[in-house]
Amino acid sequence: MSATDRTRHRRLREQGRTDREALFEVLRAGFVCHLGVVVDGDPMVVPTVYGFDSGHVYLHGSVAGRSLTRDATACVTVTHVDGLVLARSVFEHGVNYRSAMIYGVPRALEGDEKLAALRVLTEHIAPGRWEHARPPNRKELAATTVLAISLDEASVKIRRGDPGDQADPHDVWAGVLPLTRAWGPPVADPYTTRPVPEHVLRRTGEPF
Amino acid sequence: MSATDRTRHRRLREQGRTDREALFEVLRAGFVCHLGVVVDGDPMVVPTVYGFDSGHVYLHGSVAGRSLTRDATACVTVTHVDGLVLARSVFEHGVNYRSAMIYGVPRALEGDEKLAALRVLTEHIAPGRWEHARPPNRKELAATTVLAISLDEASVKIRRGDPGDQADPHDVWAGVLPLTRAWGPPVADPYTTRPVPEHVLRRTGEPF
Repeated sequence: MSATDRTRHRRLREQGRTDREALFEVLRAGFVCHLGVVVDGDPMVVPTVYGFDSGHVYLHGSVAGRSLTRDATACVTVTHVDGLVLARSVFEHGVNYRSAMIYGVPRALEGDEKLAALRVLTEHIAPGRWEHARPPNRKELAATTVLAISLDEASVKIRRGDPGDQADPHDVWAGVLPLTRAWGPPVADPYTTRPVPEHVLRRTGEPF
Repeated sequence: MSATDRTRHRRLREQGRTDREALFEVLRAGFVCHLGVVVDGDPMVVPTVYGFDSGHVYLHGSVAGRSLTRDATACVTVTHVDGLVLARSVFEHGVNYRSAMIYGVPRALEGDEKLAALRVLTEHIAPGRWEHARPPNRKELAATTVLAISLDEASVKIRRGDPGDQADPHDVWAGVLPLTRAWGPPVADPYTTRPVPEHVLRRTGEPF
């Protein structure tokens, strides 16, 4: 991961990180990104699921219609909101968050590479699911676009901790209101006759 | 709110909604959006806080440096991830979500309009905070860019419920793994001597 001009942190320099482990931590902690592309000169931002390995983030083509233009740079942003920062001054209010931004030209995958990436994506979102569910058939594979974007140009921003405006003489309650995410109990659909399998229970027990 | 060509739902038509109430419901349920802009021809997607009223979404200038180019269209997307949809086939796996997408040319606010928008933004993120915390002074106001984007061109997509591939003969556990967000108990910073005020406790008790 290298800092290019646009992924070098201009404003919140102290929060910027460019090491790979920080990037992987942010990517591991979620499964929905916001994909930015340019359509007819204007930006379009769509939420979509992702998976990743050591070199790439993978997206699939549920948004393929028009958003995944080939040979043009896309921006993939993953954000976790960890809390509200309630400061002494309105000006210093903010958010505790972890966010990764990746720039790259998406490459459409085919054949074995496409199937492997779909597996990585599925196993990231729902570990154990690739073996449990019915694998994609030829027709489904043909209807799915799978794209790889290199992690070479990426950056991470993290804000943690207290407001930091303790020197402000305005005497109010200041601190952080943490925001957490949690899995609820699995809800089987009305046609399922099996008990909840281990891989689903494991998913709910994971910190997220 | 009107459906233009780019906010008319092409792929998931059954999930699209264009009524205002659906838009407000999605905007009420969060406070961080993903802002998409075009920088040097490429898309950039940054997370930032927002507020809104009946006609506009408001952003402030913590991201003003280069992302909020004037006189160019921006895309604001707000997404809530409500659960994982675990289907019988890998192909039918998906996410339950609520998402709003707003297109518009940001307008920088000044004077009373700027202050009013900052108040709307602050009160959306942390209700009761505008009266409790120190209001912005002249210097802080000058350092803050506040932008309004009209809600005229917006759309909402919602996916709810079961996988829907019950006809697939592959016999596995299928259903939904709900994902929820919750506020944790407020954490005062070490310099705060007051008890947690009511407006903070109220925030944590709100459904989110």
